Amino acid sequence: MKNTIFRIEGLRCDGCASTIKVLLDKEPGVKAVSVSFASGEARVLYDPGIVTEDRLAATIERPGYRVTARQ
Amino acid sequence: MKNTIFRIEGLRCDGCASTIKVLLDKEPGVKAVSVSFASGEARVLYDPGIVTEDRLAATIERPGYRVTARQ
Repeated sequence: MKNTIFRIEGLRCDGCASTIKVLLDKEPGVKAVSVSFASGEARVLYDPGIVTEDRLAATIERPGYRVTARQ
Repeated sequence: MKNTIFRIEGLRCDGCASTIKVLLDKEPGVKAVSVSFASGEARVLYDPGIVTEDRLAATIERPGYRVTARQ
């Protein structure tokens, strides 16, 4: 299991954060997600044998947000 | 093919609208989606043999929005 924190640019409200959480929760291999508008970060716990960090970043970016850092 | 307009309460910005669009696009049976923050509406074209109106409403509501009318 792997944990990655994605720094997200473009989050404008708590609604955005909640909706990105639902999008990430739908990805196969994702075990836990928290997304914070206040910190502009998504924390994702996932099985890297099922889903890649790149795919998770692409999921976040699809509606128009931008991942500016991962740690 | 069926077209439903969902009136949505709780959309606070364009980012919310874009992210709900991506969520709806992921549903099997959905052919076209537009979501407008300005009008507070999602217009969805879908195959009612594959996905129900109730399921689409549930998808919109999962992040915390509320469907107040359908037409």
